[in-house]
Amino acid sequence: MRAVVRRNKKLVLDEIAEPTPGAGEVLVKTLACGICGSDLHAVHSFENMLELGARTGEKPKTDPARDMVFGHEFSAEILDHGPGSAKALKAGTRVVSMPIAMKADGYEAIGYSNTYPGGYSERMVLSEALLLPVPNGLSDVQAAMTEPFAVGEHAVAMSAAGADTVNLVIGCGPVGLAVIAALKSRGLGPVIASDFSPARRAVAEKMGADIIVDPARESPHTRWSDLGVPRTSSERMAAMMTGQSGKRAIVFECVGVPGVINNIVESVPVGTQVIVVGVCMETDKIEPFLCISKQIDFRFVLGYSAEEFAATLGNIAEGTIDVLPAVTDEVGLDGVAAAFAALADPEQQCKVVVRPDKVS
Amino acid sequence: MRAVVRRNKKLVLDEIAEPTPGAGEVLVKTLACGICGSDLHAVHSFENMLELGARTGEKPKTDPARDMVFGHEFSAEILDHGPGSAKALKAGTRVVSMPIAMKADGYEAIGYSNTYPGGYSERMVLSEALLLPVPNGLSDVQAAMTEPFAVGEHAVAMSAAGADTVNLVIGCGPVGLAVIAALKSRGLGPVIASDFSPARRAVAEKMGADIIVDPARESPHTRWSDLGVPRTSSERMAAMMTGQSGKRAIVFECVGVPGVINNIVESVPVGTQVIVVGVCMETDKIEPFLCISKQIDFRFVLGYSAEEFAATLGNIAEGTIDVLPAVTDEVGLDGVAAAFAALADPEQQCKVVVRPDKVS
Repeated sequence: MRAVVRRNKKLVLDEIAEPTPGAGEVLVKTLACGICGSDLHAVHSFENMLELGARTGEKPKTDPARDMVFGHEFSAEILDHGPGSAKALKAGTRVVSMPIAMKADGYEAIGYSNTYPGGYSERMVLSEALLLPVPNGLSDVQAAMTEPFAVGEHAVAMSAAGADTVNLVIGCGPVGLAVIAALKSRGLGPVIASDFSPARRAVAEKMGADIIVDPARESPHTRWSDLGVPRTSSERMAAMMTGQSGKRAIVFECVGVPGVINNIVESVPVGTQVIVVGVCMETDKIEPFLCISKQIDFRFVLGYSAEEFAATLGNIAEGTIDVLPAVTDEVGLDGVAAAFAALADPEQQCKVVVRPDKVS
Repeated sequence: MRAVVRRNKKLVLDEIAEPTPGAGEVLVKTLACGICGSDLHAVHSFENMLELGARTGEKPKTDPARDMVFGHEFSAEILDHGPGSAKALKAGTRVVSMPIAMKADGYEAIGYSNTYPGGYSERMVLSEALLLPVPNGLSDVQAAMTEPFAVGEHAVAMSAAGADTVNLVIGCGPVGLAVIAALKSRGLGPVIASDFSPARRAVAEKMGADIIVDPARESPHTRWSDLGVPRTSSERMAAMMTGQSGKRAIVFECVGVPGVINNIVESVPVGTQVIVVGVCMETDKIEPFLCISKQIDFRFVLGYSAEEFAATLGNIAEGTIDVLPAVTDEVGLDGVAAAFAALADPEQQCKVVVRPDKVS
């Protein structure tokens, strides 16, 4: 079958062996697959990511010297069932799945595996137990957006965002947009969205952000007082004495570049919670004394639970989340390498979806 | 009256003006006052602390060029009431108080103020509304330990420590010991205590730590698996599949030196919560990718609430917390400067208490 293969730190369109479903697995036809920012990193830096990952104690399962097929944000159609499968969903059913292949001896990360090709290919093998049928006639592209938007659902679930918080999203790439969508799907606000890119700010507004800030013109941190968040301990105490508890600031860091975290600490009110969703690959600086003085609560979050993944699909199906403003292009397998280049410029692209059927 | 004054970045024993209680204030005789690690920093670095504090947006209330009298961990005896006070507690009553002077226009930090001398003096002025009578015949020294042990109470209250956590305290100075005491007063365990100093480890054991580690001989992080904490996502998933959820690691950082936070991130299991209580004054490094891979939850905590302060006094009064093993010496006002020097060596001293009545 045709697939975009990562080989020698490059993406090449090639013919690879047809995948075969084992026990409890299904063979699927890839319908749509989003290109993730992690994939953009991984082309050049997968070796580095693997090394950092090994420092968490995980045994690496992937040999970066061997071929792998990226793509973990997919929708698909069931073609065939492996031996001994329950066949709860018939061939022809459109499905999504967390990008994990469950095995007796652990799991493989679909999209970063030598043995399970990801969605930049015509066909994949998925675990039957993880399949969710696509509801409500969602389009292939909408369904494929379940995975990246589940990242936002998880980030918000891990936060203290609620009726008494003011929520700032720094960076309106796909991760930041997913956070905005998850906040608004819960009816939370105000949501302040900040990004240097006019194109990204426009999408953030379509996602429902209440206040849009161009940080080149105005720091998003000028807004706290007007929105009812006491900035200092003295201000918080003064608010309490007049019977107002004051709101709390929640900041979602969705950039992942050195210096952003420290700038947030420098700029936020006392008692802020910072949810770090952007993946910074380099060593960064913090000032613990300032973190302590401001009593910052940092949560570094990753991924999502099976429940959050399913809830996100439900939100998209019910129209609580409209994913389409984030999708800026669709390409065939022959267009993936060019799309990776275009995604470097936020004015050009936000989320590009690969459709293996399509000829670019 | 006699007081130890911070002047020109030195401590000098001098005669200073008698403090006078205003409306809602009381004049007290200082009975006992602990020397805090912050005071050791502040002799040389108060200017720097003030500058860092100003970056939180607080207007500095103290002029470091003027005299100030340190000491914010005190017990005292009421001598006289200011005009218009409620006199709910009579003269002769022994009291403790949070080290804050409540004023109509805000508050002053007793012990870091130009106008409210702290406990390194014969007499102080306190706010009547904040006074708590010393219960159960506690000694002056025991009562004075309410403040430093409230720091531990707050740190534990801000943590997720519970029946399903394994709790590691890194650094067994007064802050770490207070954390151990607060954990054990709640019946929580196991508590692992780690410190390079044999003397500090001995006090940690008396405070009730279950496992004592000398990090020069063995990393405290070798214990997680044996204590039921899955180290990696794979291990956590494997535990869940056998119906065991696995325990969670909580680490209390009570050292406050650059490099400690990064070493913790490098060494802890996935999903660890890190409570940062130690005050590091310098810029430090973190590796966000590793924090994200391990989904670390950092809480930088400071101080305590009025409720936590009162609860700590209650715990000491009921014998749930025995503060005395931490107290290694008592000195008079003429012994404060020498005690500051001795406190630099953890083998010599842990908590030194100033007794203004005493002649060293």
